Amino acid sequence: MAVGKSVQRKDGVAKVTGKARYTDDFSMPGMRVAKYLRSPIAHGRVVRIDTTRAEKLPGVDGVFTFHDVPKNTFATAGHPFSLDPEHGDVADRLLLTDCARFQGDEVAVVVTRDDMTAHKALSLIEVEYENLKPLIRMQDVLAHDAPELHKRSRNLIKEHAYTVGGDYKKAIEESDHLIEGVFETQIVQHCHLENHSSYAYMDDMDRIVIVSSTQIPHIARRIVSEALNFPLSRIRVIKPHIGGGFGNKQDVILEPMVAFLTLKLGGIPIRLKLNREECMVGTRVRHPLHIQVKAGISQEGNLNVIDYDAVSNTGAYASHGHSIVSAAAAKTHYMYPRAIYRCRARTIYGNFPSAGAMRGYGSPQIIFAVESLMEDAARKLGIDSVDFRLKNAVKPGDINQIGKRPIVTAGLIECIEKGRDLIDWDKKRATLQTPQTGPVRKGLGIACFSYLSGTYPSCVEPASARLILNQDGSVNLLVGATEIGQGSDTVFAQMTAETLGTSYEKVHVVSNQDTDVTPFDSGAYASRQTYVTGQAVMRAASELKDKILAYAGVITGMNPGELDIDEGNIVIAKSRQTAVMSLKDLSMDAYYNKNRGGQITSEVSCKALTNAPSYGCTVVDLEIDIPMCKVKINEIYNIHDAGVIINPLTSEGQIHGGMAMGIGAALFEVLMVDPDSGRIYNNNMLDYKVPTIMDIPGLGSGFVQTHEPTHPYGSKSLGEPPVLTPAPAIRNAILDATGIAINELPMNPKTLFTHFKNAGLL
Amino acid sequence: MAVGKSVQRKDGVAKVTGKARYTDDFSMPGMRVAKYLRSPIAHGRVVRIDTTRAEKLPGVDGVFTFHDVPKNTFATAGHPFSLDPEHGDVADRLLLTDCARFQGDEVAVVVTRDDMTAHKALSLIEVEYENLKPLIRMQDVLAHDAPELHKRSRNLIKEHAYTVGGDYKKAIEESDHLIEGVFETQIVQHCHLENHSSYAYMDDMDRIVIVSSTQIPHIARRIVSEALNFPLSRIRVIKPHIGGGFGNKQDVILEPMVAFLTLKLGGIPIRLKLNREECMVGTRVRHPLHIQVKAGISQEGNLNVIDYDAVSNTGAYASHGHSIVSAAAAKTHYMYPRAIYRCRARTIYGNFPSAGAMRGYGSPQIIFAVESLMEDAARKLGIDSVDFRLKNAVKPGDINQIGKRPIVTAGLIECIEKGRDLIDWDKKRATLQTPQTGPVRKGLGIACFSYLSGTYPSCVEPASARLILNQDGSVNLLVGATEIGQGSDTVFAQMTAETLGTSYEKVHVVSNQDTDVTPFDSGAYASRQTYVTGQAVMRAASELKDKILAYAGVITGMNPGELDIDEGNIVIAKSRQTAVMSLKDLSMDAYYNKNRGGQITSEVSCKALTNAPSYGCTVVDLEIDIPMCKVKINEIYNIHDAGVIINPLTSEGQIHGGMAMGIGAALFEVLMVDPDSGRIYNNNMLDYKVPTIMDIPGLGSGFVQTHEPTHPYGSKSLGEPPVLTPAPAIRNAILDATGIAINELPMNPKTLFTHFKNAGLL
Repeated sequence: MAVGKSVQRKDGVAKVTGKARYTDDFSMPGMRVAKYLRSPIAHGRVVRIDTTRAEKLPGVDGVFTFHDVPKNTFATAGHPFSLDPEHGDVADRLLLTDCARFQGDEVAVVVTRDDMTAHKALSLIEVEYENLKPLIRMQDVLAHDAPELHKRSRNLIKEHAYTVGGDYKKAIEESDHLIEGVFETQIVQHCHLENHSSYAYMDDMDRIVIVSSTQIPHIARRIVSEALNFPLSRIRVIKPHIGGGFGNKQDVILEPMVAFLTLKLGGIPIRLKLNREECMVGTRVRHPLHIQVKAGISQEGNLNVIDYDAVSNTGAYASHGHSIVSAAAAKTHYMYPRAIYRCRARTIYGNFPSAGAMRGYGSPQIIFAVESLMEDAARKLGIDSVDFRLKNAVKPGDINQIGKRPIVTAGLIECIEKGRDLIDWDKKRATLQTPQTGPVRKGLGIACFSYLSGTYPSCVEPASARLILNQDGSVNLLVGATEIGQGSDTVFAQMTAETLGTSYEKVHVVSNQDTDVTPFDSGAYASRQTYVTGQAVMRAASELKDKILAYAGVITGMNPGELDIDEGNIVIAKSRQTAVMSLKDLSMDAYYNKNRGGQITSEVSCKALTNAPSYGCTVVDLEIDIPMCKVKINEIYNIHDAGVIINPLTSEGQIHGGMAMGIGAALFEVLMVDPDSGRIYNNNMLDYKVPTIMDIPGLGSGFVQTHEPTHPYGSKSLGEPPVLTPAPAIRNAILDATGIAINELPMNPKTLFTHFKNAGLL
Repeated sequence: MAVGKSVQRKDGVAKVTGKARYTDDFSMPGMRVAKYLRSPIAHGRVVRIDTTRAEKLPGVDGVFTFHDVPKNTFATAGHPFSLDPEHGDVADRLLLTDCARFQGDEVAVVVTRDDMTAHKALSLIEVEYENLKPLIRMQDVLAHDAPELHKRSRNLIKEHAYTVGGDYKKAIEESDHLIEGVFETQIVQHCHLENHSSYAYMDDMDRIVIVSSTQIPHIARRIVSEALNFPLSRIRVIKPHIGGGFGNKQDVILEPMVAFLTLKLGGIPIRLKLNREECMVGTRVRHPLHIQVKAGISQEGNLNVIDYDAVSNTGAYASHGHSIVSAAAAKTHYMYPRAIYRCRARTIYGNFPSAGAMRGYGSPQIIFAVESLMEDAARKLGIDSVDFRLKNAVKPGDINQIGKRPIVTAGLIECIEKGRDLIDWDKKRATLQTPQTGPVRKGLGIACFSYLSGTYPSCVEPASARLILNQDGSVNLLVGATEIGQGSDTVFAQMTAETLGTSYEKVHVVSNQDTDVTPFDSGAYASRQTYVTGQAVMRAASELKDKILAYAGVITGMNPGELDIDEGNIVIAKSRQTAVMSLKDLSMDAYYNKNRGGQITSEVSCKALTNAPSYGCTVVDLEIDIPMCKVKINEIYNIHDAGVIINPLTSEGQIHGGMAMGIGAALFEVLMVDPDSGRIYNNNMLDYKVPTIMDIPGLGSGFVQTHEPTHPYGSKSLGEPPVLTPAPAIRNAILDATGIAINELPMNPKTLFTHFKNAGLL
């Protein structure tokens, strides 16, 4: 049995020993470097651009501006194509722009023999801008006289509103308490270790080959095709190892440009690699949200209705645009599904770096608001925070009101109870004095979440897997789903071993995707791969097993139905002890018997037609040094119902990473944009505070293992969920300790100082 | 319809524009170069080898000798593994030797930072040899007191003898004429444009990756595994474009060494690239044969019996060993199958470069002997050379006496007739005076051949193909069969287009094999790919079509049985006019419909269980300047029955290349080895005379298109056959012109001078 075991990651040794090869580790003879000229201002029109001097610099192969690029706008969001034209992404991008929309926007690009020459060439390009008023604040963007960032957009990408679950008005009227709050979340950046990097060349068939650090090679291929109006089947995208993506590589950012450049310059290999400063502003960030939440609650603490009105600012370009807030709102409904939900959401433009997908995809923001409000509700009613959530939390059999489908597995209540026990909630609660006094105060906090496993039925959920039985009885596994550090190769290998009946070590994962040969899969996002791709892997392994047993029947004359595979041997199914032959011997016959057989492979491509919600919570015990405006976390636990855990060790790793990211957003991280000028203050890792090992407390985790019947191994999503609840749990614990509700992020010393000062604590 | 058309080669533009990337066009950061230390003597034992000084040279990463390499001998012949232990290749190789067996044998290897350092390091290795007597001449090798080149070999690799078709003795007795001859063929070398080159590194999973100019990536993988005793599934072989192989890359020559070196040196990338001098002696050559042939013929010109006794000298190491002469003898039986055949063959060792596979695989030598003897027979009986062959040539329904299977398609008679007409044989024959006089004399010659399409039933014949329907309605084709310049990618694409019902341009061939992902196929040899792999390609295309039509049924609700694909559209099968939808639209639905479909692919792995003989002949009209000892070809034609011709243009190219190679072996080429010292005189392209465009006359070709029922498109082998008959046809024409039978090759001025002198013509 391989599923459920803490086997070592397939790529573990490669990565810790530095052997793993990333995009930048590959080179080609004659490779050139490309570099962007970025706008120094946040909003302005290019009125003159002169590249003459740059072009004349020795070592410069080309200089391109807005005038040189195709004029068809394209969308960069890494979504699968939608057959419904209404469902498409917003195409508001050109390869280069003549209108800067954020400080760092791309107005020109140079291709040169080396980095030094590139820097020099960039300095020789003369640009004259007409300054326009930068729009950063929501009210500025939506002002009736605001200039339009994109033509005919009114600066609004999309809005939608709905009510589900019953009569909203009636429910509000029947509620004993109405609780309201306004929440603001900040811009944060993914800060993956490996910056964005791509290179491209034209192969000998005049096809464009792009090697890129991408989560979505198959989607990138399509988007490059659209951006350049170049035939899709003449584009090939290869994905080496990736040093983290977190959604930022679910956007097609560098690929269209490198493809364009090699196409323009006779097919020579050209690398475009962002440095950290560029990556911080020139890729994607998390959407800042302004969220008004309202809840109607009965005296007994039943949540009757919840209402959120969210404005999501996508920054300069749409990227994933309205999908983010829309998806996040919908995923949150699974948490307290017996309530009526009203939701309104708008996504607007602004003159700062484009927001896109980031771990949690809008849910961290929405959940920060909702779970903060739930805390306020519990406090208003005088109900313990844990009890309030236990009362309202989802139960199996509840109906999700959007899709009107019953929720099958829902371990949220058990997660809350487990969290309560792990942190010794009741005992600590009993000993905490209220209100507290003194410079250092203690608090307990909890926050819950629901999330989904993929994007169905909003989007198509395709997945494919191919297996090859090798001569030595081992198997090669090919998937289009991408290992981006999250451990997907490892769990796919476990699933294959489990279903095939061989050992984990005998499954070799061909890790790096290549759209020419890799089975189709839309890639790493939406916590979809274990759940969605796992279904294809299981079916491919099952098909391979059937073929192997059928061939064992051919060799032995036995009935394949009476055979099975166990630890790499064909055995009699009943006894399981009697090895008929080894997989290796069978395989050698299939490959080399002159009169029968052939290579045994299997391939399955399918689509997920279900979507299972995951659940969980964070519980935290912290203390606050009020004069220092400093939070110290004593204990923090994330408890997850992610169905059956395929690999406890790597799952714990996922949780630790997500919690650290959540704590970072809660207490430290913010990309600071001047609200008047649009100037970015901290586009680097010195000024942008990502928590280090010194800032992160011991992280605890726990699992509530439900068995999700829509997944072959009972599993649900775990990739993104860990990031969702640290911030609201910490906010609630700070409230618990100080009585002060901090409804904005990050809750860094600067923010705390303001709130503590206003509250008279300082 | 794509089959039968002269479509442009898939790789044509890439190759003529220099865009095609070969093994040497790839590099990796930190790549090192390896170079062999080669023995200066042809036979001798290393009694002392001191690498100390070389090791100390800056820039040297490693120096390895016999003492450092694994001590398990391995075979290098690129044959598929045989489940029959009796059928295995001779394992007489180590990675490095302490006993030099030819001038150029590999006694040490250095790994250094660059070529200059490698040369310097080699010069610092001190080696002391004990000289042993070199064995070059057959009689020296087989002398009872000859030293053994390989232990317990008696210098004989294998011998076998058989008689088929009837009572040999009786047939001899009943023959009116017994004709006999002894023939000697020379050592020639393949002289492919691209020398052997491989590099290897260890990937991040500690697997060995080998990039190599090989005809047989999947077989190379297995042989490296055997040579290093390293798990097969931890070896990956990648084959880029190849600049010719002709069988010399059907041996696993450099791959085990580069794999060994990277394994020894921590996985760094190491390139081993032979220069021309090394390639001429350190790879493989064509076996020189000593052949005694006897034929029993009736007064009417019926060939009753044919008897050959061949001694094949494989040189220093076995490589393909006895397979060559054995296969060649067997393939020749298909030409005159109504005769009784007696065959005896021996393969021996000798102190010169190892012989291996080369285009024709022994048949050029055997056919030179047989078709020369047939000429002598015709002349003895006074029957016209053409008529004599017409009388005895194979007819459909004849039985091959070895396999006792009927020969289904046999266009040899039509080929001979077509050749006779093309060259205007009868008219010219009538005008040629006999005997001729004067310094310049004219002659006509003919020679016929039979050949097979693959190796079944001697060897397993596996082939696989995988097809992917792309979003734009085009398809990607993956095969394990290797494009080595012969045009296989092109004909596979034609077959796919034909069966699928789309255009040739819409089939993209993923040309470069990678054993991790490429469907299994044993590779390019034995003229097998069109015939053997074609079967897998057709079945994969047919499977893809079925899946597409089934999915069209899902979309439209129509009966898939009533649909067809025509020029990239789904059409109503009956009317063929009505396009139901385009392949692109269908594919987009399959990829992106949220509730159905999936990527449509097909994969077939199968084995050829048949083998069809190809036939043909060369006719030549030439003149000889006797004082100059110079042959001038006026007209030469190759006529082929290769079944249905998939691509007339590329087939003609195959024929031209083969004819040039055949003319080269007939008139120019010989690798000269001193029979006493084993010294090689001409290991380079200045001294070894390969014909250039100036030496090759206009080449004519013709096809007799039979329809071979065992092949889905009616095709048979064409890769090797063109090389088989130019030499005997030229020999026969020289005999016709001068009355002198030259029974040795090459018939260069030096040979002609000796013969003309002996005959008193000079």
